[in-house]
Amino acid sequence: MTYAIVRPDQSLAPALQQRIDTKTKPLGALGRLEPLARQIGLIQQTLSPELRRPHMLVFAGDHGAAKAGVSAYPQDVTWQMVENFLAGGAAINVFARQMGMGLTVVDAGVAHDFGSRSGLIDAKVAPGTANYLEEPALTVAQRDAALARGRELVRGLAADGCNVVGFGEMGIGNTAAASLLTHCLTGTELDVVIGRGTGLDDAGLERKRALLAKAVARGGRRGDPLEALTEYGGLEIAMMAGAMLGAAEAGMLLLIDGFIVTSALLVAYEIAPEIIDYCVFAHRSEEPGHAVQLAHLGAAPLVQLDLRLGEGTGAALAFPLVQAAVNFLNEMASFESAGVSGKDA
Amino acid sequence: MTYAIVRPDQSLAPALQQRIDTKTKPLGALGRLEPLARQIGLIQQTLSPELRRPHMLVFAGDHGAAKAGVSAYPQDVTWQMVENFLAGGAAINVFARQMGMGLTVVDAGVAHDFGSRSGLIDAKVAPGTANYLEEPALTVAQRDAALARGRELVRGLAADGCNVVGFGEMGIGNTAAASLLTHCLTGTELDVVIGRGTGLDDAGLERKRALLAKAVARGGRRGDPLEALTEYGGLEIAMMAGAMLGAAEAGMLLLIDGFIVTSALLVAYEIAPEIIDYCVFAHRSEEPGHAVQLAHLGAAPLVQLDLRLGEGTGAALAFPLVQAAVNFLNEMASFESAGVSGKDA
Repeated sequence: MTYAIVRPDQSLAPALQQRIDTKTKPLGALGRLEPLARQIGLIQQTLSPELRRPHMLVFAGDHGAAKAGVSAYPQDVTWQMVENFLAGGAAINVFARQMGMGLTVVDAGVAHDFGSRSGLIDAKVAPGTANYLEEPALTVAQRDAALARGRELVRGLAADGCNVVGFGEMGIGNTAAASLLTHCLTGTELDVVIGRGTGLDDAGLERKRALLAKAVARGGRRGDPLEALTEYGGLEIAMMAGAMLGAAEAGMLLLIDGFIVTSALLVAYEIAPEIIDYCVFAHRSEEPGHAVQLAHLGAAPLVQLDLRLGEGTGAALAFPLVQAAVNFLNEMASFESAGVSGKDA
Repeated sequence: MTYAIVRPDQSLAPALQQRIDTKTKPLGALGRLEPLARQIGLIQQTLSPELRRPHMLVFAGDHGAAKAGVSAYPQDVTWQMVENFLAGGAAINVFARQMGMGLTVVDAGVAHDFGSRSGLIDAKVAPGTANYLEEPALTVAQRDAALARGRELVRGLAADGCNVVGFGEMGIGNTAAASLLTHCLTGTELDVVIGRGTGLDDAGLERKRALLAKAVARGGRRGDPLEALTEYGGLEIAMMAGAMLGAAEAGMLLLIDGFIVTSALLVAYEIAPEIIDYCVFAHRSEEPGHAVQLAHLGAAPLVQLDLRLGEGTGAALAFPLVQAAVNFLNEMASFESAGVSGKDA
């Protein structure tokens, strides 16, 4: 599969910079918001960008390896948390509501039958992945189906007028899969990219390390993004990667959350590095592998709030800053229009 | 003058922590938002705090020393920017609007006659301070009038039902006054707390350093907050300090912006250290003296966006995070109510 992602034409950059620099503020005084405004202007190819119908997509999936003990929580928490999302009681519900973002939960591969439910897209490829300690997590067909379904999903959002999409996830055991993908795709030593996930104690962390070392001994360090995805999953990560590629194809702005979402972006980036121009990195997670991913991508997140929750919470929390970048560009007066004197010569 | 600021009763802390810990998330997974929720609950003495009628107060004043060359901008920019605030075209207007915060500009001492204007409170104590290179910036009467007027202002806000107030400022030359106050009140070497303000070049920075050294040679390093304020001003800083003290007396939450706002807080803190329990530090400014102030106060701001604009922009930008802390506490489901399993034993 090839993806038609085009690097934004840079010819508008000087005009955007000029617009930023004539606002009633010292040069550069809005810090990180200034390059962000420029980036969004370039993506949308306009001096007056707009964020329309912002939407969070939360992808959920189960992991065959979860039962081997890579997480502090039982696997049932995946579907229970999906129910919590659908009832509006999870952190991502609270923050998406506050920030005026739509929220859709995508069942990419939860080991539970939800039936037809409002707010849930049934895109289940399989009821969880296979256990990568014993065999590849996904078949090639499952992987490709997940990628394709993700791409299709965001096309639907784009058709509805959405041009900014946040990514979130839920899946007991998915920090383990994210560690394996990060090891594969950045070449960083496995132990460096393994963390406590949702709260393993020291013994749990040791067990996770031993299990993931065993997984790599079986499946190998796959430098190819598609092979790595097949080997270690998960379905929610694969579908997110497809959705990210589709979002960049559609010229949307992508809000990248923490460690697991960034592992999906690593896959997407290896497939189409042009995607990076469409990404805003929302927050720096506490999970140690996240710093490795960010360094690999040359990315600097907007905020660092010691979050380690996932669900897309960091992306939702950072969204007002992204909106602020667009707003200052559109709404601030210029020195000339406001009659304010410039810097002394 | 004494201020009746009471440390919030801590007896509710265990119940607040319990409420936070039973939310559907791993323990501590919302990072910085969790102690913030606890702090606000303690201030309001409730498990269900609310942020009501959030308001930005932007204090403006001129500095007699500005004409000596401590800023990159001419003094007229102070009143021109106040006009920009009143017209709605400045960064703080854009951000306060976006965040749903009210905005009032307070003329504490601008060297300009605005007449009666909507959105502007005329609290002018004098048309600018005296030049601290030659004499004390304020008389004792001016200083006390500014402090009292600030306190009175926030009482008005509190009476209108506001319980969260952001502080911002505008005043050409006020980073210089903030440096002098920070030198006085933290004891840090003067050169360490002097920065480029709104954009001095190397020569400008050298000039500013020489001028402020001259000011300290004349006025001394005053460790007493009231004496320091008299010596170096400014009126907007004094009035902010009074407003902060009044806000803490009224049990409001204080959103502390960058370097200049924190210099006003240093004054307030030396007068009544209990104020610190009511403060949320919004952002870490690029101005080098801000780090010194924060270390002195033991404070860690929520965001670091390389802002160096003032006006209260950092406080407004961080406000959604403060709101998010309150919202998760009130709106998230508990493990029990959502039927989500806890951590494996």
